[in-house]
Amino acid sequence: MEPELAGRALTAAPGDDGVEAAVAAARRVIAALLHAGDRPEAGIAEVADMLDAVASQLEGLAVPVRQRLADMWRGERIGRYDPVAGPQNAIAPPLRLYGRSDGSVEGTVTLGLPYQGPPGLVHGGISAMLLDHALGAANYWAGSGTAMTAELTLRYLRPVPLFEPLAVVARRQSVDGRKIRGAGTISASGQVCVSAEALFIGKEIPVPGRAVPG
Amino acid sequence: MEPELAGRALTAAPGDDGVEAAVAAARRVIAALLHAGDRPEAGIAEVADMLDAVASQLEGLAVPVRQRLADMWRGERIGRYDPVAGPQNAIAPPLRLYGRSDGSVEGTVTLGLPYQGPPGLVHGGISAMLLDHALGAANYWAGSGTAMTAELTLRYLRPVPLFEPLAVVARRQSVDGRKIRGAGTISASGQVCVSAEALFIGKEIPVPGRAVPG
Repeated sequence: MEPELAGRALTAAPGDDGVEAAVAAARRVIAALLHAGDRPEAGIAEVADMLDAVASQLEGLAVPVRQRLADMWRGERIGRYDPVAGPQNAIAPPLRLYGRSDGSVEGTVTLGLPYQGPPGLVHGGISAMLLDHALGAANYWAGSGTAMTAELTLRYLRPVPLFEPLAVVARRQSVDGRKIRGAGTISASGQVCVSAEALFIGKEIPVPGRAVPG
Repeated sequence: MEPELAGRALTAAPGDDGVEAAVAAARRVIAALLHAGDRPEAGIAEVADMLDAVASQLEGLAVPVRQRLADMWRGERIGRYDPVAGPQNAIAPPLRLYGRSDGSVEGTVTLGLPYQGPPGLVHGGISAMLLDHALGAANYWAGSGTAMTAELTLRYLRPVPLFEPLAVVARRQSVDGRKIRGAGTISASGQVCVSAEALFIGKEIPVPGRAVPG
């Protein structure tokens, strides 16, 4: 990690408890299903049966949704469940973001086949998701707390490659009453591929506990 | 399905081969990991071991990435692998889109905990992803083939609820040389929650085979 990235982590670190180990394994499964591909031979039926068995076992542990939502949002569990940075969400790459001393946030992520849109490239909607999340984290890091996205504009300047490190950077640019503006970029090999501008409306989300960016 | 939705499917139908059954089971696992949550007791360690075993088995079937990418984009396999509509991508909800006779495209999707941003609500980046993809499909349905997103603007008007049917609608609005403009919405209970406008640049992506929207 570069020195300027050695700021405060704004996304939850992976824990070593069982859930997060299981989520990490689930990410391996998601990617491997795309790398193995269209080969109905070779034990795939058995794989489906094994995954269904795991799902059934986990579903037996489920708590009612209302209770689960209350548990999720209690305390300081920032960013633990979301589809961008959440170590407990197998959909998340995950993107880990750090607050820098200049007020911006930055993270680096390499995306594989699950995030593909055009051939060999990151899906435009995935780029949008990374930037929306990073912009929300930038508000938080800059002291604006949790704000809701009101408007987000993305400019796709260059294709975003799979399998290469992507630098995601975002910063809060201005605050005017409840209106917060921010900007961010996704870069590969030092070139900006996607830029974003966003308008947020700052307010606390009315739930118990502390809410998170995004 | 409502009559006006009974148009041509623009996203790949789930197949009944082993891969897609395994992907469907993986989606159950992804959701169940979030519903079970922070309970390191109760067999979670065993679940991690089982998932790692499945991942290792699948990774043994992987073909080299270059070959896999060539296979994926050969022939008419529209939308089979992407993170929005792809039946072979466990990240995809999946959103299934249909072309309507008025030139628009529509799909309905209900999103659960893996797609959560704020408490009980869909992540803003997920809404962006759904709309980016639907707008690309609308270009395709309207006859513009595959176009790359150049600019995408999202307006978040109302929170997007989890666990409720969401209607995703998009249409191509104009074509001016290679510039294609489109617009779309996500609605819940008949009210527009997110609207989008996009500018696309129409061109074929230079790969063998036929490319897909998104």
